Amino acid sequence: MSDTTPSTRPPRVVVTGADGLIGRFVIDAWRESGKYEPVGIARRPGPYADVIGDISALEPLVDAFRGADAIVHLAATSAVGSSWDAVLPSNLIGTYNVFEAARLAGVERVVFASSNHAIGTYETENAPDLYALDDGRVWDHTAEIRPDSLYGVSKVYGEAMARYYVDHHGLRAFCLRIGGVRSPDDPSHPANLWAPELDADEATLAARRRTRAVWLSERDCVQLIERCLETDHRWVLCYGISDNPRRFWDIEHAKEVLGYSPEDSAPAEILPDRG
Amino acid sequence: MSDTTPSTRPPRVVVTGADGLIGRFVIDAWRESGKYEPVGIARRPGPYADVIGDISALEPLVDAFRGADAIVHLAATSAVGSSWDAVLPSNLIGTYNVFEAARLAGVERVVFASSNHAIGTYETENAPDLYALDDGRVWDHTAEIRPDSLYGVSKVYGEAMARYYVDHHGLRAFCLRIGGVRSPDDPSHPANLWAPELDADEATLAARRRTRAVWLSERDCVQLIERCLETDHRWVLCYGISDNPRRFWDIEHAKEVLGYSPEDSAPAEILPDRG
Repeated sequence: MSDTTPSTRPPRVVVTGADGLIGRFVIDAWRESGKYEPVGIARRPGPYADVIGDISALEPLVDAFRGADAIVHLAATSAVGSSWDAVLPSNLIGTYNVFEAARLAGVERVVFASSNHAIGTYETENAPDLYALDDGRVWDHTAEIRPDSLYGVSKVYGEAMARYYVDHHGLRAFCLRIGGVRSPDDPSHPANLWAPELDADEATLAARRRTRAVWLSERDCVQLIERCLETDHRWVLCYGISDNPRRFWDIEHAKEVLGYSPEDSAPAEILPDRG
Repeated sequence: MSDTTPSTRPPRVVVTGADGLIGRFVIDAWRESGKYEPVGIARRPGPYADVIGDISALEPLVDAFRGADAIVHLAATSAVGSSWDAVLPSNLIGTYNVFEAARLAGVERVVFASSNHAIGTYETENAPDLYALDDGRVWDHTAEIRPDSLYGVSKVYGEAMARYYVDHHGLRAFCLRIGGVRSPDDPSHPANLWAPELDADEATLAARRRTRAVWLSERDCVQLIERCLETDHRWVLCYGISDNPRRFWDIEHAKEVLGYSPEDSAPAEILPDRG
């Protein structure tokens, strides 16, 4: 048998928001590993745009999804402070279009990039104490919904939409409340420290601690998405962060139901003399 | 002192969807009791339309809300089977407009007519057994979100929006997952039995049992809304049903946090010889 036999082709996975930070490194990983055949959808031509388009209209999405084995839905306005005018077309209308197009195109599996901001008020109420190494508090997927922004509201909505399509249209859906993916992929890099000077004031120190708490490395992100593409479960809601000592979101549920085994861990220490 | 002294005027409450089933009887109740000064917003002229308008645009809502003490937000596409094209303008865009207009107009308190369909899948998965008198299962406000429809998704979204405005903009919000309000206001009336014949088949019997399980009487609905207008709490999410023996949604939380004391109870018996 040749390796072009249909039964051995890698699963085809359509990635929305393909030219965003996460889309790019996920597609790069699959182009290198060959585990999946990524089909990127992006609004502008470029190396990740196998299909030029967006998620604002249903019909073109149905066409783009036909023949796919799964969808990884990353397209969104991703700034926490996004205005209503940005959230409405991308995160509300667009996310409905993605799930409905998956149903219409007969694609069973959707991985949805949700966000910790669906429950971000636990953080805003408890920062910066929450970032301390010895704080110990952790919120899991059962925490009561407390969005910190219109962006967070839109992610709660996306999770509810996903669950509806699972329960009533036979889809499988996996919602990852992603923490902080960084570029460069290093929580200690000066570009990720908000301010590089050593005599950091308290606010800067808090920001540095937060970066260490919420980091999701590129390879842990790819692993989580792959686990969602492989699992027999029909529905999972979990957090996406690396094995960070300062974490305040749960990773035990992802380990348990998806077999997530993070390879990375943001270093605990911030400055030599100030933990 | 005359009874027109400003300090003794009843609180002014703007009611969206004023000419809907609930809007009409709530406004009638307040016109009779004088406890609140209702200001109805409806799309068409009529006896409940103090303001002609809808919730699809923000600015006119801000104008209509100015000077109000509270908002009761009932306007929605209310059919469980509503299409996306109906849900989007009324329940998604409109509900954002209501909360944002309340903030802009300086109105602190919003009562939001949510729905049991935010978690309706527990019912669809367990009907008709669930309707039996001795079934005993009850879901409360902590149940994991499981919408049964795009309508249900829109109510989850509305609850998340409400919580965001409470946590981050100082509003108070009260989400009532309303059960079945009937017209006429009698769960045993033939018009509410889906089919009046005595030799009902199993489906009809199930429908009759359901009607007895989910009923919210007009006066219990008015009481719940008034409790939300009077409470010192900043946030409550609870169910709105009468004290029905067949109920499968919780009323204990509403009793505990709002002092809800239902006056009505749908009769348990369905037919003389078939409980």
